Amino acid sequence: MRTVRVALGERSYSILIGRGLFARLGRMAKSEFSGGRVLVVTDRKVAPIYGARAAASLERAGLETETFAVPAGERSKSLRQLSRIYDRLAALGFERGCGIVSLGGGVVGDLAGYAAATYLRGIPFIQAPTSLLAQVDSAVGGKTGIDHRAGKNLIGAFFQPRAVVCDVAALRTLPPREFRAGLAEVVKHAVIADARLFAYLENNAGEILRLQGPALERIIWACCRIKVRVVEKDEREAGPRQVLNFGHTLGHAVEALAGYSRRMLHGEAVSIGMAAAARLSCLEGKCKERDADRLLALLGRFGLPTSMRRVPALASLRRLVSRDKKSRGGKARFVLMARIGKVVTGCEVDAGGWRAALR
Amino acid sequence: MRTVRVALGERSYSILIGRGLFARLGRMAKSEFSGGRVLVVTDRKVAPIYGARAAASLERAGLETETFAVPAGERSKSLRQLSRIYDRLAALGFERGCGIVSLGGGVVGDLAGYAAATYLRGIPFIQAPTSLLAQVDSAVGGKTGIDHRAGKNLIGAFFQPRAVVCDVAALRTLPPREFRAGLAEVVKHAVIADARLFAYLENNAGEILRLQGPALERIIWACCRIKVRVVEKDEREAGPRQVLNFGHTLGHAVEALAGYSRRMLHGEAVSIGMAAAARLSCLEGKCKERDADRLLALLGRFGLPTSMRRVPALASLRRLVSRDKKSRGGKARFVLMARIGKVVTGCEVDAGGWRAALR
Repeated sequence: MRTVRVALGERSYSILIGRGLFARLGRMAKSEFSGGRVLVVTDRKVAPIYGARAAASLERAGLETETFAVPAGERSKSLRQLSRIYDRLAALGFERGCGIVSLGGGVVGDLAGYAAATYLRGIPFIQAPTSLLAQVDSAVGGKTGIDHRAGKNLIGAFFQPRAVVCDVAALRTLPPREFRAGLAEVVKHAVIADARLFAYLENNAGEILRLQGPALERIIWACCRIKVRVVEKDEREAGPRQVLNFGHTLGHAVEALAGYSRRMLHGEAVSIGMAAAARLSCLEGKCKERDADRLLALLGRFGLPTSMRRVPALASLRRLVSRDKKSRGGKARFVLMARIGKVVTGCEVDAGGWRAALR
Repeated sequence: MRTVRVALGERSYSILIGRGLFARLGRMAKSEFSGGRVLVVTDRKVAPIYGARAAASLERAGLETETFAVPAGERSKSLRQLSRIYDRLAALGFERGCGIVSLGGGVVGDLAGYAAATYLRGIPFIQAPTSLLAQVDSAVGGKTGIDHRAGKNLIGAFFQPRAVVCDVAALRTLPPREFRAGLAEVVKHAVIADARLFAYLENNAGEILRLQGPALERIIWACCRIKVRVVEKDEREAGPRQVLNFGHTLGHAVEALAGYSRRMLHGEAVSIGMAAAARLSCLEGKCKERDADRLLALLGRFGLPTSMRRVPALASLRRLVSRDKKSRGGKARFVLMARIGKVVTGCEVDAGGWRAALR
């Protein structure tokens, strides 16, 4: 097992990464939830696979456990599902010492975390992410939230969990396409901060794609460490945290154009966004062609898309990009690549180049 | 004008108390809202009286201003009204630099503050409370939230405003009954922390009830100072903040029994709760009869109720008290009075005495 400590004063906690950790959930929850009761929030795909194991561990630890499963998919990040969770918490008579465990991917983690952040102005919660994307990215850093018809994650809170428990064994049941989509965020972390991790990904792509435990632990641990260092410097996204947005400015637009559907997973959109950002970086003279080529090659090796078949009109791209939460004064700021392991934030890039970069 | 500084690190801000301050809202908002746009959230009773004045000040300062009025009353602290505010913010294309001004009483402040806390994971907001209750209590301290059918303020966030602007002139248009209800929280602040303020209230009750400016400024300032000192020690209600709960354990139950209706205003319920707490304090040997008598006399002087006509059954009291957000392990903890100016927290009181104390 590997551990990453998140140092945020009184909100500090640990991220645990290893095999079979869901069997230890109970012991951890017991020490964090003084109220003796826990609601496991999960989705209908994950519940049949890991629900019983997680609940058994929690009950063995003496916690009264209930499970609440939302439909799988982004559409569950809604006020409606949130309201249903509130109803359940109220019906169970939850007090401030009772807690929530989120068991699932990014959707479940964001939704359950936001419920925990806002019920009684905050009750303790533990993230038990089951997807690679959640283990390396969305479960780490304290962002929680739901969608609004006007935009993804438009409603939310910064709220840190009491622990994040990444069971790498869970990745064996993840659909291969989703696993690969998660690798996009792994690649992102390497590009923004860790040239050694990037080289490791290049040299061990086969082991990773075959889901070999030690390789998975190694890359998840490395990504969590990178993200945690960034979050420690900038918990509430005032500035430095922007590096994490590499590939996301155009990536979000690409994802929105597909209507946040199964046609385009978040990681796939980010992969296209990173490839586009790499091309723009070369165009703007910020990075060498060789580095951009390495990035495109690695994304390809992982079976990820690096361009769009049909590039949308500039007007719709512009509209989507300006709606980004991080935009200010209607202007998009890009994170560009300086080299593998280093990026530059706050770059204004002429919209003229966007479409070419997506091709 | 008087000022109270709230020292909470990077979340520090000022509370301004004086006459005609709503005319200065624009200047203050201009320096806090870099995005150039503002949504004034108010209610349909306050909007016709102060809406135009506030909007004019904001527009004079160069801020694009829209006003959003919810129906007056507790029922507006709902997911439904919250969702309508999100819709409006999204339609207006609000970015993180754009802000919300809450113009109204506690309901509007809690609702608008919670919208600000959660939209884009937090946008700046300014409280412009128009009721005495809001000026001395609910607008101060960073609690925001909405109700759930299972309980008041069940959903919420701790989120500090960028400024609180208390225009004492606004109290002239407050219905007298609501003004008196607000005095209950003024008395509470005096009992928990300030014997001098208590004596001032006794000696100047006439001036206060005649809404004389200097007396109002003096008491609002004193209450804000007391609450701010408590909040600075315990922003997220881990412990010391419990003193503010004096009179609220039974008060909340009394309020809930009346169905949060106009039959029983929050301040009136708190007045009954404080009187009951004072009686329990004597019964438990924590305080002298004389001090309890002074409290009851002052509440009476302000035209506030100190007992219930029909005391509910113990079972329903018990159920309501155990549902309190601050209860742990189903046990109610009372804040009792040691003397005027000092209270003791965490007191377990045998339920047998509750009913008698309410009579």
